[in-house]
Amino acid sequence: MSKRSDIAADEGRLLVQGPDRPGIVATVSAVLRDVGANIVALDQHSTDPEGGRFYQRTVFHLPHLSSMAAQLESRCAERIGADLGMEWQLVESHRPKRVALLASKGDHCLLDLLWRQRRGELPMTVPMVISNHADLAEDVRQFAVPYFHIPVTADTKGDAEARQLELLRGNVDLVVLARYMQILSPAFLRQVGVPVINIHHSFLPAFIGAAPYERAKERGVKLVGATAHYVTEDLDMGPIIEQDVVRVAHDDSVSELRRLGADVERQVLSRAVLWHCEDRIMRHGSTTVVF
Amino acid sequence: MSKRSDIAADEGRLLVQGPDRPGIVATVSAVLRDVGANIVALDQHSTDPEGGRFYQRTVFHLPHLSSMAAQLESRCAERIGADLGMEWQLVESHRPKRVALLASKGDHCLLDLLWRQRRGELPMTVPMVISNHADLAEDVRQFAVPYFHIPVTADTKGDAEARQLELLRGNVDLVVLARYMQILSPAFLRQVGVPVINIHHSFLPAFIGAAPYERAKERGVKLVGATAHYVTEDLDMGPIIEQDVVRVAHDDSVSELRRLGADVERQVLSRAVLWHCEDRIMRHGSTTVVF
Amino acid sequence: MSKRSDIAADEGRLLVQGPDRPGIVATVSAVLRDVGANIVALDQHSTDPEGGRFYQRTVFHLPHLSSMAAQLESRCAERIGADLGMEWQLVESHRPKRVALLASKGDHCLLDLLWRQRRGELPMTVPMVISNHADLAEDVRQFAVPYFHIPVTADTKGDAEARQLELLRGNVDLVVLARYMQILSPAFLRQVGVPVINIHHSFLPAFIGAAPYERAKERGVKLVGATAHYVTEDLDMGPIIEQDVVRVAHDDSVSELRRLGADVERQVLSRAVLWHCEDRIMRHGSTTVVF
Amino acid sequence: MSKRSDIAADEGRLLVQGPDRPGIVATVSAVLRDVGANIVALDQHSTDPEGGRFYQRTVFHLPHLSSMAAQLESRCAERIGADLGMEWQLVESHRPKRVALLASKGDHCLLDLLWRQRRGELPMTVPMVISNHADLAEDVRQFAVPYFHIPVTADTKGDAEARQLELLRGNVDLVVLARYMQILSPAFLRQVGVPVINIHHSFLPAFIGAAPYERAKERGVKLVGATAHYVTEDLDMGPIIEQDVVRVAHDDSVSELRRLGADVERQVLSRAVLWHCEDRIMRHGSTTVVF
Repeated sequence: MSKRSDIAADEGRLLVQGPDRPGIVATVSAVLRDVGANIVALDQHSTDPEGGRFYQRTVFHLPHLSSMAAQLESRCAERIGADLGMEWQLVESHRPKRVALLASKGDHCLLDLLWRQRRGELPMTVPMVISNHADLAEDVRQFAVPYFHIPVTADTKGDAEARQLELLRGNVDLVVLARYMQILSPAFLRQVGVPVINIHHSFLPAFIGAAPYERAKERGVKLVGATAHYVTEDLDMGPIIEQDVVRVAHDDSVSELRRLGADVERQVLSRAVLWHCEDRIMRHGSTTVVF
Repeated sequence: MSKRSDIAADEGRLLVQGPDRPGIVATVSAVLRDVGANIVALDQHSTDPEGGRFYQRTVFHLPHLSSMAAQLESRCAERIGADLGMEWQLVESHRPKRVALLASKGDHCLLDLLWRQRRGELPMTVPMVISNHADLAEDVRQFAVPYFHIPVTADTKGDAEARQLELLRGNVDLVVLARYMQILSPAFLRQVGVPVINIHHSFLPAFIGAAPYERAKERGVKLVGATAHYVTEDLDMGPIIEQDVVRVAHDDSVSELRRLGADVERQVLSRAVLWHCEDRIMRHGSTTVVF
Repeated sequence: MSKRSDIAADEGRLLVQGPDRPGIVATVSAVLRDVGANIVALDQHSTDPEGGRFYQRTVFHLPHLSSMAAQLESRCAERIGADLGMEWQLVESHRPKRVALLASKGDHCLLDLLWRQRRGELPMTVPMVISNHADLAEDVRQFAVPYFHIPVTADTKGDAEARQLELLRGNVDLVVLARYMQILSPAFLRQVGVPVINIHHSFLPAFIGAAPYERAKERGVKLVGATAHYVTEDLDMGPIIEQDVVRVAHDDSVSELRRLGADVERQVLSRAVLWHCEDRIMRHGSTTVVF
Repeated sequence: MSKRSDIAADEGRLLVQGPDRPGIVATVSAVLRDVGANIVALDQHSTDPEGGRFYQRTVFHLPHLSSMAAQLESRCAERIGADLGMEWQLVESHRPKRVALLASKGDHCLLDLLWRQRRGELPMTVPMVISNHADLAEDVRQFAVPYFHIPVTADTKGDAEARQLELLRGNVDLVVLARYMQILSPAFLRQVGVPVINIHHSFLPAFIGAAPYERAKERGVKLVGATAHYVTEDLDMGPIIEQDVVRVAHDDSVSELRRLGADVERQVLSRAVLWHCEDRIMRHGSTTVVF
């Protein structure tokens, strides 16, 4: 029914990025043609024709992809990696990403992702939900997803993160912070080994610190927004994936702002997760290219 | 043709605000009924039923409004001002606001306002444009609007503002900064005697300081926005009137971001000016109520 | 936590509509003041000062509202109904509407409403879900809501509607068609005795008939939308409550259009239900006023 | 200052479309590499990997493009046209499109395009404006653009179109109907020899025929929109380029709907013209691909 189930077993994605130079597209397409692959979709972006950075996402169809993958990889390594000095990544489209969801007490982002996954809207599996609270266990288990409750206090944070890492290691391709209200330590981020996506509210102008909705109300803002980004050690400042806003008015109370903010948060987070799982996002430094 | 020309000669607006207490709506409507006015539209907002602030905008139809105005004013002064202790303001709708536009070199906000005024979309007259540059003189004069060129340098700022005040005093009901790239001094703001509306770009997250579009590009923002606000001595932090955003992507260059930003700036500013000229905005402290 | 739980036991809403004439606002506010009520919010709209239609929604605070309601009703009947000839309705805000949800196989609108109700975002109770399919029974019952499966075929439609009416009669204040894929008969609509809200997809241009997403794809539309409206005997043509759209592109497949359409459908329907439950919508003929 | 002036003299665009088959991207990129071109941006879309249609827009940088163009064209003709059986088109990016604007009395779309062109936002020249009315002559000539007044009546339509064709033939690459309120005859469309873009209002649901804003008001629509499309003999049904909507409410009068509709019309039309002039739009049958 959904687009996701339409993905043919023989569809692959090839991501290439690096310093721009002539002939990259020609080389990539020759590599694919030489193994018998047909290009289905291709997006390419250069930040600057002179000395810029090159990004390319290619979706291709290759009969018997699984058995051909090793051969294709060795050609990519030789002609794209060694000869051109570019970073590359090969993905079999039909393999869903394994995504761990981290949550606290708020359910809106978490349930939206689980529900979209169940509908077949997100090409991912959810091997586990980890929460520092027990509140959402029942809701999560109704989706037949394991729920691990790992409390976190200032004293136990190190131990808690160690337990989280133990559960995650080798089992997931992505961690999504679905309104997880703890700050992950730099050590955790270095060790987790997979990308981490976060969602947070955003305002014009920005309100840093506590009680942002109360302050937005005081300032009479007319828009409430959300930003999804990759988590780096630079808190809330990682590469932006997606942003959106919703219009608010003077007769919206603080709790109404919060409700509208929650709505835009789950929309923005679900788009960010979808695009990540479709390998549409290429990161470099503080920016993203979203094809 | 336009809505504006539909305004009947006998339509008035009554604005009331102050500490909330029982019976205000009843008193205001009784005052209007007693002089024979019929309420056409009424918007009311209380920030809190207990100890909050009360705002009301009432549009009414009163035969022979001009000759009745003095009588109505004296009743408002007695029953709304003296008895209830509320601030009030009475406006004859058909009288356009007299609006001075201040500009520099950028034409997008200025020409959009002049063009909308000419089409009859904005219930205002434009008695003058003042600019610290000569560039836009010809464009402005094609709208039959006087253009006063008052250069501003660090040394001459005091004198320049004195000349501006001389031109403005008594001649305008509103000053609009249509991308006027000079900061008005606190002394100017105290002496100008009419509200001042400004427009500036806005980003998620906010970029303070120089070259905001360049920094937005570096951070890979997905939305570019604009905020219209009343100018206070607290730079760019006055009460917000209107905000909006436009979606941008990784393949938009800095100049493309600037173009899209200019588009949203002129939209947002024209809405703010329209609403001000229709007396839809009520200010209190750092916030606005926009009916 | 939510706005809804903030509703004081003593808050009421008074809705008034009818042919416009001078003095209605004054009368309504005097009626409220005379019983000791304080107006918290007031929205008023007249389609035309001369011979137009008048609409007013007033939210008020009245100590001991429940015990005062009879007295207030009799005054409304006399002064608003009899004297002015206006329709009026008095509602105690803290009483949630009782809402029956009708669904078929699609879960997106149904689960979104149930989840928002559980979060306290919608001031309603859901005494029952009725479906012509069994598919969603388990999902619904997890919300502790009764699920009644009433199959409908061309032959059994009359009987099925009779059973539906039996379940609904006296038990609900509103029926919401949450992607219920059967057309309700004129007889059902006459007998159900409460408003019925429906949601359907909308396109620019409109596509009537079968397979609308396929046809939208063929025509290369750039927007996919949804419309929530009250159901009348004039199929899909009842008074519009809310509409919204989402942007689509050439690389969205038909199933992607359907997914994006489902997203906008549940947003639009939840807003329409919220506004109805807050008594913000006033109907007259083919239009609505949404305060 | 603007993006447009950034276009290097040596930038070209190569558009390719036709039945999908393996190896097209590889061939196109090899053709470009062989002449020494570097790909700057590449967008590609296939409607279906099996038996679908292939679209590709490639932006490239080729030193001394003008002198190399003939050589590149002959290679495209041989390897893309003859060998692969694809349609192709080669464009030198720095050459602005020559665009004729046709208007009647309404100025909003016309002036917005002229103003954007003057600001350098649109990579086009405007060799002429043709109108069936004289009203806008002065406004247009202030932009130093020739204005030709060709009245049209039922009797003179054939002659008028003949004069229009005489003015246009050989002088323009695109005709834009900027609220031109005459229907072009099938004969005109066959003879004009260049694409024609139109803008018209759009509603949910659609209102066919006279007085659409009045009917939208009667039905209480919540969105007012606009659609830009290529003109075909099938009136208002040509391939859609761009659509957008703006939110309206019950207190917007018919003239207010018209004003908001005019705003969205000029936004949508300017985007459509920009994308056409950047060769971002590929047409096939009733649809467009907009890269």
